[in-house]
Amino acid sequence: MPTIVVEVMPKAELLDPAGKAVAGAIHRLGENRITDVRLGKRFELHVDGEVDDALLDTARQLAADLLSNGVIEDVVSVHVAQTVTAGA
Amino acid sequence: MPTIVVEVMPKAELLDPAGKAVAGAIHRLGENRITDVRLGKRFELHVDGEVDDALLDTARQLAADLLSNGVIEDVVSVHVAQTVTAGA
Repeated sequence: MPTIVVEVMPKAELLDPAGKAVAGAIHRLGENRITDVRLGKRFELHVDGEVDDALLDTARQLAADLLSNGVIEDVVSVHVAQTVTAGA
Repeated sequence: MPTIVVEVMPKAELLDPAGKAVAGAIHRLGENRITDVRLGKRFELHVDGEVDDALLDTARQLAADLLSNGVIEDVVSVHVAQTVTAGA
């Protein structure tokens, strides 16, 4: 079963307190090469049947309208993954 | 500045109520080819300098120990992205 993966990240100009907290935890563990962390969302849309261009367009529309908040988030990727990772 | 992307998804055998809610919303909009939705997390670890194998191993260890809860989540990917999407 094909899967459409939608990736949403907080906009670069926003603070992202959750990502900052993770970065702080990583630094306390002594790993200072990682300077900053951003925490976003990853949706897997499981599709019944084949993914055609029309469905991918629909997914892009859903990503912009429903899966992300355009005020604070950017949709960074909408792509098809043939391997369903959640079933691994 | 290179970025290590860590992707974490809820385990397949768990219910994932947030994903179910999104799937319900998509179905109410009339899109029934998308049968199921899973909602996971996507971390961007911004790295100062080059990403070598040792740092990638460290990132894999952080992904398993700090960025995911092994009881309910799987780390599905740890990879390097040269383009910093959050800066787009």
